[in-house]
This record gives sequence, C-alpha cells and structure tokens, in this order.
Amino acid sequence: MPNPHAMAEITWPEFQAYVDKGAVAFIPTGALEQHGPHLPLGVDHMLPTAIALDIAAEVGGMVAPAIPYGYKSMTRSAGGPFFPGSTGLDGATLSSVLQDIIREFVRHGIRQICVLDGNYENLWFLNEGIDLAMRELGDTGLRVMCMQHWEFLNEDTLGKLFPDGYPGIELEHAAVIETSMMMHYYPDLVRTDLIPDNPAVDAPPYDVWPPHRDWVPESGALISAAGASVEKGRIIADQYRRDITAAVRREFPARARAAE
Amino acid sequence: MPNPHAMAEITWPEFQAYVDKGAVAFIPTGALEQHGPHLPLGVDHMLPTAIALDIAAEVGGMVAPAIPYGYKSMTRSAGGPFFPGSTGLDGATLSSVLQDIIREFVRHGIRQICVLDGNYENLWFLNEGIDLAMRELGDTGLRVMCMQHWEFLNEDTLGKLFPDGYPGIELEHAAVIETSMMMHYYPDLVRTDLIPDNPAVDAPPYDVWPPHRDWVPESGALISAAGASVEKGRIIADQYRRDITAAVRREFPARARAAE
Amino acid sequence: MPNPHAMAEITWPEFQAYVDKGAVAFIPTGALEQHGPHLPLGVDHMLPTAIALDIAAEVGGMVAPAIPYGYKSMTRSAGGPFFPGSTGLDGATLSSVLQDIIREFVRHGIRQICVLDGNYENLWFLNEGIDLAMRELGDTGLRVMCMQHWEFLNEDTLGKLFPDGYPGIELEHAAVIETSMMMHYYPDLVRTDLIPDNPAVDAPPYDVWPPHRDWVPESGALISAAGASVEKGRIIADQYRRDITAAVRREFPARARAAE
Amino acid sequence: MPNPHAMAEITWPEFQAYVDKGAVAFIPTGALEQHGPHLPLGVDHMLPTAIALDIAAEVGGMVAPAIPYGYKSMTRSAGGPFFPGSTGLDGATLSSVLQDIIREFVRHGIRQICVLDGNYENLWFLNEGIDLAMRELGDTGLRVMCMQHWEFLNEDTLGKLFPDGYPGIELEHAAVIETSMMMHYYPDLVRTDLIPDNPAVDAPPYDVWPPHRDWVPESGALISAAGASVEKGRIIADQYRRDITAAVRREFPARARAAE
Amino acid sequence: MPNPHAMAEITWPEFQAYVDKGAVAFIPTGALEQHGPHLPLGVDHMLPTAIALDIAAEVGGMVAPAIPYGYKSMTRSAGGPFFPGSTGLDGATLSSVLQDIIREFVRHGIRQICVLDGNYENLWFLNEGIDLAMRELGDTGLRVMCMQHWEFLNEDTLGKLFPDGYPGIELEHAAVIETSMMMHYYPDLVRTDLIPDNPAVDAPPYDVWPPHRDWVPESGALISAAGASVEKGRIIADQYRRDITAAVRREFPARARAAE
Amino acid sequence: MPNPHAMAEITWPEFQAYVDKGAVAFIPTGALEQHGPHLPLGVDHMLPTAIALDIAAEVGGMVAPAIPYGYKSMTRSAGGPFFPGSTGLDGATLSSVLQDIIREFVRHGIRQICVLDGNYENLWFLNEGIDLAMRELGDTGLRVMCMQHWEFLNEDTLGKLFPDGYPGIELEHAAVIETSMMMHYYPDLVRTDLIPDNPAVDAPPYDVWPPHRDWVPESGALISAAGASVEKGRIIADQYRRDITAAVRREFPARARAAE
Repeated sequence: MPNPHAMAEITWPEFQAYVDKGAVAFIPTGALEQHGPHLPLGVDHMLPTAIALDIAAEVGGMVAPAIPYGYKSMTRSAGGPFFPGSTGLDGATLSSVLQDIIREFVRHGIRQICVLDGNYENLWFLNEGIDLAMRELGDTGLRVMCMQHWEFLNEDTLGKLFPDGYPGIELEHAAVIETSMMMHYYPDLVRTDLIPDNPAVDAPPYDVWPPHRDWVPESGALISAAGASVEKGRIIADQYRRDITAAVRREFPARARAAE
Repeated sequence: MPNPHAMAEITWPEFQAYVDKGAVAFIPTGALEQHGPHLPLGVDHMLPTAIALDIAAEVGGMVAPAIPYGYKSMTRSAGGPFFPGSTGLDGATLSSVLQDIIREFVRHGIRQICVLDGNYENLWFLNEGIDLAMRELGDTGLRVMCMQHWEFLNEDTLGKLFPDGYPGIELEHAAVIETSMMMHYYPDLVRTDLIPDNPAVDAPPYDVWPPHRDWVPESGALISAAGASVEKGRIIADQYRRDITAAVRREFPARARAAE
Repeated sequence: MPNPHAMAEITWPEFQAYVDKGAVAFIPTGALEQHGPHLPLGVDHMLPTAIALDIAAEVGGMVAPAIPYGYKSMTRSAGGPFFPGSTGLDGATLSSVLQDIIREFVRHGIRQICVLDGNYENLWFLNEGIDLAMRELGDTGLRVMCMQHWEFLNEDTLGKLFPDGYPGIELEHAAVIETSMMMHYYPDLVRTDLIPDNPAVDAPPYDVWPPHRDWVPESGALISAAGASVEKGRIIADQYRRDITAAVRREFPARARAAE
Repeated sequence: MPNPHAMAEITWPEFQAYVDKGAVAFIPTGALEQHGPHLPLGVDHMLPTAIALDIAAEVGGMVAPAIPYGYKSMTRSAGGPFFPGSTGLDGATLSSVLQDIIREFVRHGIRQICVLDGNYENLWFLNEGIDLAMRELGDTGLRVMCMQHWEFLNEDTLGKLFPDGYPGIELEHAAVIETSMMMHYYPDLVRTDLIPDNPAVDAPPYDVWPPHRDWVPESGALISAAGASVEKGRIIADQYRRDITAAVRREFPARARAAE
Repeated sequence: MPNPHAMAEITWPEFQAYVDKGAVAFIPTGALEQHGPHLPLGVDHMLPTAIALDIAAEVGGMVAPAIPYGYKSMTRSAGGPFFPGSTGLDGATLSSVLQDIIREFVRHGIRQICVLDGNYENLWFLNEGIDLAMRELGDTGLRVMCMQHWEFLNEDTLGKLFPDGYPGIELEHAAVIETSMMMHYYPDLVRTDLIPDNPAVDAPPYDVWPPHRDWVPESGALISAAGASVEKGRIIADQYRRDITAAVRREFPARARAAE
Repeated sequence: MPNPHAMAEITWPEFQAYVDKGAVAFIPTGALEQHGPHLPLGVDHMLPTAIALDIAAEVGGMVAPAIPYGYKSMTRSAGGPFFPGSTGLDGATLSSVLQDIIREFVRHGIRQICVLDGNYENLWFLNEGIDLAMRELGDTGLRVMCMQHWEFLNEDTLGKLFPDGYPGIELEHAAVIETSMMMHYYPDLVRTDLIPDNPAVDAPPYDVWPPHRDWVPESGALISAAGASVEKGRIIADQYRRDITAAVRREFPARARAAE
C-alpha cells in the first residue's frame, strides 16, 4: 500500500487534496556520505525521511522525495572527502535544487514548507536556497521552517543517551545518535557486528585544505558508537515526534490544524 | 537486508570494494510528475531505479540514489506544468546535480557510469551535465552512457504490448508502457481501478507559452492505459534486463566483466 | 534594398511601426555545424532565416537576426563534435541568449514571438530560455511559439520527398530534406557535385561519452542525400509557408492579423 | 558563389583546410541597436563583418558568423535603451557566447583568433570572455586579439573625415564614421534622405539609472551625420585594410603568413 | 607610515618580496552588520583585520584588504535582516570573491593563505570558495587555513571573560567578547555609554522565513554586553596572538618560518 | 572618534537616521593593483573612499565600505596582470557584489546611491551590476549615479596639472594625477623618493592575450609621475568637492538637500 504521506507514492489528485487542506510539505535533505563501517551511505537522507513521515502523520502533511545528495563532507564533522562514497554537491547546486522545489511547490499552492535536514554540512546552503526562493517569489504568504533534527535533542534525552556525559554534537557522526536512530528506523541496514568503538577525534579549531586524513579515525566514526541501542533510537524518535510536531504546529498554526 | 547493489544501503568499505572491481555505477534519473489518476508521482524515478537494480545485479554494479526531481513537464509529452505535483527543476540545476555526482564518483575511482533516465524531458540537461563533467575532468578514462529506457523497446516487444499497433512513444505518458511496468515492479502503488481510458491527445507540431491546458485530457494520461497488464510489464522488464545489460557490457567490456 | 521584414535591415522608426501594429517577431535559431561535404556550415541558421522571412511576409512580421551558434552536435543526430567547424555553445549560454532577447523584445512592446529552430540539438535549451523569460517577465501578455520546422512536414510532403519510404527524421542530417531546401533557398551554396550517397547510420539507442567516431559515415551525412532536388525544396517551402503561417495565425490570432 | 572566407558558407572539409594552414579566425561582434533614422539596426555587426572579410581576404583567414546581439546601449554612447530595437544582452551572456566559441575553435585546432568589435559597449564583456577562455584552456598556444575598429583611425584619416575638427569618438554613434562606412559597404541599406543633422549631445561625465531620455536627440544620432559620404567610407575601409592587416600580421606572424 | 604588513599599503616590489620569502597571506573576512547601539557596523571585518595584523607581525605575513561585506544576518546568531545596515551578500557572491582572490594570489606565487573570519554566517560560503579554488587550481602546492577567531578561545580565557559561566558562542553577538575586543583594538569606535544590558535571547532550535523580529531584543545584542572591558579585550588578543600564531606555524611550517 | 560619514564606523541607529533623512549612500569601488614603485597597491580604493567622504560631508551622506578588489588589470591601462599584487576579480563577481549591496541598501530604505569608482577597468562591470539591480528591484524609486572621478577633471584643472599639455587619461596610471592625489589624501603612503620618471607607454590600438609584458615600463607607471605634487592633489580634490557635489545635488535634488 502506498504511504499516504509520501509524496512520490500518491497520485496528482491526492496531492491536490493535500494542497486544498493547506497541508505542510516536508522536504527531507541529506547526503550520500560515509557513516562508518556499520551504517549505510544513505543515513543522512534516510533519517530525515523517516522523521518527516512521523511528523507528517501527526500533522496531516506530505513528505517530498528526499534530496539524497548534499554538501561536501568536512573532515571535522563528517570525516572528510577521503572516504569512499562521500559524494558532495557544490553549494550552489544544493541551494538551487531546494530553491527550484520551493518555487514549484508554491506554484502548486503550498504555503507551508518544512525543510528537515540530516547532514550537518548542508545547513547554510539550505538557508540560502530558502532565502533565494523567498526573495524571488515575493509576497505569497509562504512560510518555511528549516531544522537539523538533532537541534531538538533536549537535556532529558541527552541524559538518557549519554549516561556518562554528552560529548557534543560535533562528534556525533556515525556515533550513538545516528546509530541508535538507524537501529530504530532501519534495523536491517545496521551492521551491528561492525559498530566501531574508536576514541574521539581531537581536531583543532580550524579547517585546512587539502584536508588532513589523520584527523579522522580509520573507521570514519568520529567517536565510539558502542553505546547505541534500538531503545535509544526509540527515545529520540519519540522526542522528535512530540517536539518537532509541536514546533511545526506553532509555526504553521491555522493551516496545519486544518490538514489533520 | 540491504540490497547489495543499492549504493545508499551499503557501507563505505563495500562501496570501495565495488570501485576496486571496476564496477559500473548506475545513476537513475526521473521526476516528480503527474502520471494520471492511477500512478504515483514518483513513477519516473521509481522505474529507472528498478531497472537499474536489475541490470546492476547482472553486471555486478552499484545503483546510486535516484535524482528524484527532473526537468519541467512539457504539455505534449507529460501533460504540462498545470498538474498538481509536477515539480520541475531548472535545466541548469539538473545538469549541475549530475555533473557534481559524476565529478565525485570519478574522484572515488569510478570510471564507468550509466545514466538511466525515466523522464522524457530530462534528456538534454543530462547530456549537458555529462558533457560539462567530461570537459571539466579531462583525461581520466571515464566513460559515460546515457539512455532513456523506452528507446530499447524493440519491434517484438512493441508487437506484444500493442497488438493493435503502436501509437508511438510520444503518447506513452502514464499509458500502457509505464502502467504495465509499475504493475510489474511496484504493484502496490498502482490504483488499478482508476486506470484511465481516454482518447489520445492530438497536439500540433510545436509548443507554446503559456501552455494550453486543453491540449491534454483531464486525466493526465495522453492516451488510454487500459491495455496495461502485469504480464506486459514483465515482458518489458525481461527485454530490458537482456538488452540493456548487453549494451552495458558492450560499452564497458573489460571492467564490467571483472565486477560480475 | 532592405528586406522590410529583416529586423537588422530596418531602422528604429520602422521597428517601432511593427510594434505599433502588434506584429509577430520571429527569432531564427540554428548552428554552425558540419552538413556533409556538399552543404555549408551555416545550414541550420540559414534555413530557419529563409523560412521565417517567408512566413513574416505572409503575416506582416519581423525576423530578428538569427542566433547563428547552437547547442553541441550529438553523434547520432548531427555527426558529433569530431567534425571540423561544428561549434557548440553550452546549453546555459544558448538559453541565456534567447532569454535576453525575449526580455528586450518585451520591453520594446512585442508580445508575440515565434522561435523557429533549425538545429535538432537546440530544442530543450530554447524551451528553457523561453520558460525562464516567461517566469522572469511575469504577467505581460507575452505569447511565445517554438518549433523545429521539420515537425511540420506532413504525410503528403514526405510521400513526395521519399517515394521509397521515409527513413525518419533522426537520419535527416545533411540529407534529402536539408539539401533540397538549400537548393531551393541558397542554390549557390550547394556543392551539387559533392552530394554524398552513403548508406544510413545504424546507431544504438543510447549515447556515450567520449562519443564513437565510427558511428558516423566519413561524409558527415547520416544517410544518402542523393535524392535531393530543387523541386523537393520548393515543395517543402510551399508546405511551410502554408502550414506554419496557419499555425502562427492560429496562435496569435488578433494581433497577427492587424499586422498584415 | 560562396564567399570563401565566410565560415558559414564553407563546408567542413574547407574549414579543415583553413585550420591545416594555421589560418586566423575572425569573430565579428556587434549589436542590434538603433542607429538613427537613416541606418539599420544591424550596423554594429554588419560593419565588423565587412571589415573582417576584407582583412581575411588579405591574410587568408576565415570569418565566423557575427555575434549579432551585444551589450546594452548606454545613453551617452549609443542613445540608451529607450530606442526601439536596441536589444541588449546581459554582460555575462555575451562573455559566455564568446568564451564558448573560442573554446570550440581551439578544440578544432585554431590558435589565432581576432575579435573585431563594432559596438562600443561590448568591449569589456568581450575582454572577459576572452580572458575566461584563456584561463580555462590553459597552455594551448592560443593567441587572441581584440579590437574596436575605430581605434585604428589615424590622424590622417580623421583629418579627411572631419575637415573642421574631430569631435571625438564618444559622439560618433550613427554619425559621420558609421554612416560613411555603411554607404561604402552596404549602400542599399542607408536612407540617405533621412541622414540627421542634429547638434551634438552634451552629456555630463557620469551615468545615471534610470537613464535620462533628454540627454539624447530625438533622432538617436549623437551628433550630425550630414558630413558622411561614400568616399569617406572608402577612405576608412582602405586604412583599415592596410593597418588592421598589418596589426594582424604583426601579432600572428608565422602562421598568418602560411595561410596567405 | 605604511603598516608593512597591510597589503593595501605596500607597493608591488614590497609585495613581491613577501612572495619571494614564502610569506603567509591573511584574508580577513567579515560583514557590514548591526552590532547593537554601541558598536559600529564594521565590527566583523575590523576585528579580523586587527587580529590578522597581529599574527602577520609574528610570522612575517601580509594581510590582504578585508572583504568588508559578508553573508546574510541570521536572526538567531546576529539579529536578522531587520536591522538597519545589516547588508548581506548572496552566498555565491561571497564564495566567488574569495575564490577569485585565492586564484590571483596563487598566480602571484603565494602558496599559504589563512582566511580569518569575523562573521559567523560566512563560514560555509568561505569553505565553498576555498574548495572551488582548490579544485580549479589543481596541483599547485597551495595550502589554505580557514578559521573563525572565537573558535580559539580556550577554557582559561573563557573563565576570565565569564566569571559567572560562559553562555555559549551562539549568543555572543555584540556582547562581551566582541565589545571587549573593540575596546582593545578600536577604543574610539565604542559608544561605552550605550553598552546594552538586555537579557539573553531564547530562540527555538530552528530558523523560519520570513524571520521573526520578536526573537531578538530591541538593541540587537543577543545577550548583555555589560561585562565587557578593555582588559578582557587584551586577554583575548593575547591568546589569539599566541595560539593562532602557533596554529599558523604548525600548518605552514617551513615557509612561514622563512618569512619571519 | 568615528567619522560620522563612514558607514562602517557608525551604529545601526545612526545608519537609520541617515535613511530617515533620505541621505545619499556612496559606494567607493577600486582595486588591489600595482601603482608603480612609489604608490601602494590600494590606491584605487583609497582615493574614491577619500573623495566620497569629502562629498558625503557636503551633502550629508554616508560612505559604504569600499569594494577593495576590482576587475582585472589590462596592460594598456594599468600595466597588466604581470605585476605582483594586481589582483583581479572576474567581471561577474564584481557585478554581483555591487548588485547585492544595492539590493540590500534599497531594502533598508536607501533610494539614492552614488557609485564612485577609482579603477578604470571596473566601469562596465559596475554598470552591469547596477543595471541588474535596477531590473531585479523593479519600481522602487531608486536612482543610481556611477562615475569615475577623473571624468570630472576640467580644462582648467588639467591646465594646472599639465602645464606642458595633457597626455590623456589613458596613460594616467600611477602618474601625475594619482600620485598628486595620494600626496594630498594619504601623504604617509607615498614613497616620494621612488616616484618614477619613465617615458610614456606607446601601445597599439588593441589588446592581445596572452598580454605583452614589454608594452609596459619596468616601473608599472605608464608615463612619468615626476610632475606630481601635493598642491596639484589639492587642486584636484577641490574641483571634485565642488563639481561632484554639484552633480550629486543635481541628480538627487530633493532628498540630498534634506540630509544636509
């Protein structure tokens, strides 16, 4: 059966019905990028797709096909370009893809868009794509939210995920958070026997080109993922479903309600 | 279980193993576009993904995540921009996405790329993306094929699909070919009770802007899809698996063999 | 004497008089590209210029200077980039030239533009240039037609041109149609003693980069041009004058009439 | 008969023969722009085409099809955008067209290119197109000249053209120089009865947007053209043939000689 | 007297002497952006200029003119576009400026470049400009560092700056850090009587377009700047001089030493 | 003390006060470019900054931070790219920077902008940036002036500067005019002992790529600067203050007056 919230799986009359209700359109964005020996290359677009489908089910929204390629992997936050499979778009390309999609969605009558990102390096090129679309489109009533899901993790959740203390988001690449979420959402795609347990990266406070391969562990994970569990993934998913839904309802109050 | 030929589902060491074997990388391209009341908006990227996975299994290749958005819907070939959900990228955006992906794949050591397109309007912007990548990359040994799958349909297959005569590819939007293939590859996503049976479009030999809505039937299918069947879908898939595989082996002889 | 329909040959007050009448502006587009040993490199912009002047005389329109360079020669449709003189613009460049010209014509008060193309590879980049101009200009009342002249050839004409059966437009590069038209419009520029009689190209249903030189005959003609004649050129020109004129009047009904 | 130096009129084997000789390729550039009530809109691309054919005949070169559209008309130098028919490309478009043509000519083996411009406003965007091509192409041995023909007018010629004193090039739009040259090269296209005799423009030393229409005479000529004559046109053409030829031979010494 | 490390103040032979020594070129980047009622609009380019001149004096380098305009002000990190004077470049523009400067510096023989940024929102567009330059330039031996100065603040310094606890960099806009540094480097430009003491911003974990004005205090400072002092500015400057110098020497070991 | 007319030195409430008065915003543009052995690389942005501050003081305007990098140095007008430190932006980059700044200033309520340029090669890319901004912004009431300061030099001033006759602006690079102005505005930055006295360049009437180094004197000055003096600098500054102020008042009559 089609997922009724997955835009690629519905027909044009069904799409139009969502528009008529003033539904929110979610655009998941991510990357094709290394995520250690234990997670697949698609983590960064798979996770926001799954989260967005959860939220869309809550608010009666549609989830557009994820933009599966993202901005270039930086060494300190995702291991760098060295890793096989890490496939980076130019910043202007990524911005243009998002700008084009927003322009078209607005042409179809959508006025509430939530960009849900799963690749740290994407953020500013998404911001720019949104800003260029807003400027180009002028006064349409369009509102756009843009978020990176981990920004929603609160103290309580982090306490449960990291009983020994939170090492900080900057090391959470292919580590406890992403691994747990993949175990929750896509258990078949996690090679649990290969979860790495390397020490944390200790990179200096700047970037350099050409990048230094030796700033990153062999595995590609920036810190140990050994503490990951499906239970932790569920905790995260639950918090997201509650708090991102609330944020979406807060920013798109009237229309989002109508679509539920 | 991960599909071992789906690039998004494999890990970076698995990706590297493909590169080491000299494997072919397939890039499916498509669109988010109306396909009548009976087919989902994602047909044009779902079909080339499925076909590419079939061929990749034959030749030991990898299938990259599909580029799920494509060039703008033209009225005579896909119903035009009027239809809800038909979401077109600018031509330069589509070219840049493909150029960026090719550049990165070559950086990773891939030298054999097959772009497999499912959206008629994409072709020239894919050609351009490939050409710009070839020019930029210089002398790397890279070879790229680009195809639209229906170009492979032969007389024999068309005879079976259209016992009353082939009306021509230009009307085959959301019609017998695509509907049959969706019934074969994604049976759950076809609303068989809604398959339209409208008469064929009779459009003049030119385009016009703003486009004429009345050149297209209400349904969005350019001709009747009533003759579609899962059996016809299987016939097409079988011919593709045989003939596209043969073409890929012909153009990438030595290395493709090594990867099998 | 100036041709009163050639925009480059008239003065600004004469241009303004056309605008005041609501005249159609024709923009011929083509290429600088090999056309066998018997036809000059300018065929693809010379023919649409001649055709457009014919139609403009019928409907009281103006013909802008042709864009004499076009998109890159593809091997299967025009022999490929190997041939000396085949000079391809990037797709975005061609789109921009057309977009800029349309923007300026609209600024001058023109609201009816007919793009008449003579180079197969140009079409989608012309479509894009027109679409970008329409989007940029907003609600001006502008209407644009875009056509490739051979799309107008009807059964009757093809029967006269190819008494032994029409091999299809895809092989008609520097062949019977173009050679006959050049004999009709520019007889001095045809080297009739060099008209090639090679067998037809038999290329596979895909493209490949770098392109294969051996897919194309030595001559550059994709099939024999031996059946060409000035009489056949006249037949084509007559059909175009009648049918393209009719199409232009149909799409630009009121204003085109006023300009006659 | 084809002009053997006009690239659009020769065949690909003839083009190749020029390349084999190391011939110079001339690229005329101009505009579609008002030139008073007496000269056609195409003056700025017609004149450099004619001059280039003269020089090409001297040095055994080829003349590419003129780029018939140019940069935007500035009020102080060409009357401004107000005038019907003055059709300006964006600067980046013009640069790209030239860059693309140069890239392709170099691919064909040409190493000596002379850009001969007839539209004052074009110069810097031509410079940029050339510079971008040089940078992109790297070390090919390519040499490019770029000139605006009036820069070659010497004291002696100016004395003959302006017995009462030369008012300066900045006012010579649709005035004595261009009118005389058109009378020489394209006598049929000059409306001699409409040659304007307005006083000279007296514009301030800056530009302003939106431009002031009242900085320019009604006619569009920036100063009287009454002194124009076919004899003066011949004097200019003779000086150009002698001095531009000499400059071309000086910059392209060995190969240009081989092609004669 | 010219500052011998300020590139704009030295002559071309002096510039060449630096190149001959293998000196590091620093490129300060910043913005023209509101910084509360007490700091001037130029803070973000003034501070990195001052810091870079300090470091350049240590390592014998040159400081290029700052790029004085930067990326768009985001509400959560700099108050947003509402504030008078906050003047944002498009992301692609900022990237291009940096890419062009790097290309030119490499052409002049520079192989060690340190981009020192003072505007939080700039970072990813600087990264992209550097990456595009590296890719374009190929194998030149060029090395580039990119840093935002506050990333160097260590525990010890932060303890001195914030005896009551560090509120985090995300609120440090026009607050204690920047105000103290301006008091140290440009005391005449601080309106000490206008230093704001508003409570901290409490913004949600996402951005929204159009942005919410009420997420930001009236003043434009995201948190109180009342704790600022010239002494704290000196502490920061001292740490930077020591630690950034060390980082520069670590990344550019041989050549930087030669230039001292 | 802050210069109350320097935009980078004022606060956002002070900026807003200028906007409320309808003040003129000046944008100085220049280059980082060789200016002989005696003048610093920043001459071309330092001089228009100083001039603009003079005019702004007269008319109550603000001076934005100079764009300190400009278009590429041409051999005949500035010595060419050979000289160490001459750092050229691509034309499109320069246009975009200016377009972005204008767009933002208009968003802030500014409607009167004066671009004051000090680098000969910049002009057309500034024109284009302004034109693109005007087109994009539509009907806002914005007016923009663009000038190169030396265009204001009148007969009287030139007579005082060049008692032996004015050699023409095209040779005035790092020569009497610029050297005198630097002696007036930035006396500490002139190496008076190194003022060159080389003979004038005698370049042909065209450009060539790759450029000829031997068209330019060793020093980089295109003609002797020996006649420069601080007194001549004062004469120029006085004429500019009078005549540019008058021009600004003429073009921005009502609002400029309000701001004084």
